[in-house]
Amino acid sequence: MALISPITSSHGKTFNQKLFSRIRVAIESDVPHIYKLMQQLFVYHDITHLLKSNESSIASGLFNPKYPHLSPVTTLLIEVSTDPFPSCPNDTTSSKEVDLNMPLIDEESEQFRVVKHDQHDVFIAGYVMFYPCFSSFFENPVFHMENFFIRECYRRKGFGKWLFSTMASEAARMGFSSIDWYASDWNESGLDFYKHMGATISDDFRVLSLAGKALEAFEDDSN
Amino acid sequence: MALISPITSSHGKTFNQKLFSRIRVAIESDVPHIYKLMQQLFVYHDITHLLKSNESSIASGLFNPKYPHLSPVTTLLIEVSTDPFPSCPNDTTSSKEVDLNMPLIDEESEQFRVVKHDQHDVFIAGYVMFYPCFSSFFENPVFHMENFFIRECYRRKGFGKWLFSTMASEAARMGFSSIDWYASDWNESGLDFYKHMGATISDDFRVLSLAGKALEAFEDDSN
Repeated sequence: MALISPITSSHGKTFNQKLFSRIRVAIESDVPHIYKLMQQLFVYHDITHLLKSNESSIASGLFNPKYPHLSPVTTLLIEVSTDPFPSCPNDTTSSKEVDLNMPLIDEESEQFRVVKHDQHDVFIAGYVMFYPCFSSFFENPVFHMENFFIRECYRRKGFGKWLFSTMASEAARMGFSSIDWYASDWNESGLDFYKHMGATISDDFRVLSLAGKALEAFEDDSN
Repeated sequence: MALISPITSSHGKTFNQKLFSRIRVAIESDVPHIYKLMQQLFVYHDITHLLKSNESSIASGLFNPKYPHLSPVTTLLIEVSTDPFPSCPNDTTSSKEVDLNMPLIDEESEQFRVVKHDQHDVFIAGYVMFYPCFSSFFENPVFHMENFFIRECYRRKGFGKWLFSTMASEAARMGFSSIDWYASDWNESGLDFYKHMGATISDDFRVLSLAGKALEAFEDDSN
């Protein structure tokens, strides 16, 4: 991992005093950025050995499902810019200004640069991915939150709360009964954040899976 | 809970020597039985306080979704009878004979009696419920196993293995990447069964949820 230094930081984007941001629904051309965010999420959780997807399978899963009956997946992105975003009649977009106490340096800005809007520099700061599903526990469907990630340099600015709240608002307005997800038990700051958002952490549920060769072994199973 | 005694057992069904069984896909008229099985599952896991669904919401979720874009849910039932099931060209049905070492008494048989087929007594012994979904971890979709339950008097006869294998076979044949589910960490016999089936138990993933008033609080959230 690159150390933060004046030399490398000179290649990144520096935000002074003010930062403009918005949340919007991801589209297919965002997939390369989504996959890079996903890789950082798996690195953060130290579970890169579990990452068996690739950019192509994510594109297919999100936008061109081979299995059309699967619940559609929604990805919300947080974008940041030094300039205000143009106002937009699209309800799925919400905007916010953030005052910075000190300059914010995004070392990896070029990897997360969005195709320019109106000649403005726009970068992806984080994302949340979720889909609706049936639940035997509740009267109405629930959201399963598949991924939630804010890039490191954009943390502790309220973006996580904004992004999570946007998804939770959507669930509540649709009359859904719950949002469920997994988190690592060593991730104290993550768990504290979720508890602060009102989440309940199950005391005794464990997450199990049957995958790889253990699952393939059932292919010719004649019972 | 009723104690097993000769008096109460006289109200139940007794299987001697041999039991015929089959696995089939549930249909809408099975919902009352499915909901009773679900109630027993929640009692077994001591989580009845989490059961907020009802027979009507289960019927709607499984067969008449208010939200048509949700992944379809499959429920497989195990049926048992003292008589052989008629052979059926339906691929979704598989049959098996079970030799009994000692008589098997089903105290609750009347609660789980299926409308008679050809004048034979048929009862529901257990079920598995699952649906396909996107996964950021894998190249292909996965099954989420929502419920898995064998009624107490039918345990330790190989029904659980048969039912689980039937679902796992389906996942493997569809080229799916994984099956995932939750289990209680105190449920040693359940975890041992799943491990025996090849499952991996996550060391550090916790299950979180945001539901009830904590979720409703986001309804009017203006961020």
